[in-house]
Amino acid sequence: MPDECIFCRIAAGEAPADVVYEDENFIAFRDILPQAPTHILVIPRMHIASSAELGRGQEQLAGGLIIIAKSLAEKEGMAHRGYRLVINCGSEGAQQVPHLHLHLIGGRQLSGALG
Amino acid sequence: MPDECIFCRIAAGEAPADVVYEDENFIAFRDILPQAPTHILVIPRMHIASSAELGRGQEQLAGGLIIIAKSLAEKEGMAHRGYRLVINCGSEGAQQVPHLHLHLIGGRQLSGALG
Repeated sequence: MPDECIFCRIAAGEAPADVVYEDENFIAFRDILPQAPTHILVIPRMHIASSAELGRGQEQLAGGLIIIAKSLAEKEGMAHRGYRLVINCGSEGAQQVPHLHLHLIGGRQLSGALG
Repeated sequence: MPDECIFCRIAAGEAPADVVYEDENFIAFRDILPQAPTHILVIPRMHIASSAELGRGQEQLAGGLIIIAKSLAEKEGMAHRGYRLVINCGSEGAQQVPHLHLHLIGGRQLSGALG
């Protein structure tokens, strides 16, 4: 765990966050700068810098991000209205924190423009 | 396979597409209305209407979308520059085709606005 990684610190309970889900491998919390009524980040507890660091054999971990986000969308009452899942990677992807995270965004009509 | 699903027809080789990857379970092809220099859709061959239809136990399938997109980003020369992965779900998520698909978008600086 890199000491300077804010998401590792949240996962370790050492930095505050509005946590909405956690299990052995993942934790999810609300984005502090929400872009929509619901804006949750789902992260692996393990420090993985970005999706570029994922390899063959990590499908289960990567898919866990999606399945957890899907369940959280239901809890947020967005399953039927719809929502968006986003993983930003690197500079041109506008990734803000270098710890893999999936954005769950919804609660309003989202644009068809994806960035 | 719903006969009317265009992505099922592409997966079956019955509709044209600029296919960039395929294996037993997945196929990837270029979006016909690209929003960036690289805009590829990765889909499961199996008809799943959206991420809302995914369940516990389908982490491997969901994660496959991400891992394949990550590999395609490398082939497109975007791994170091960065890119974005997006799954739109339902009406408010601006999902256009009701067959689960992951957008791989890159090749230019993407906005921090996620929709």
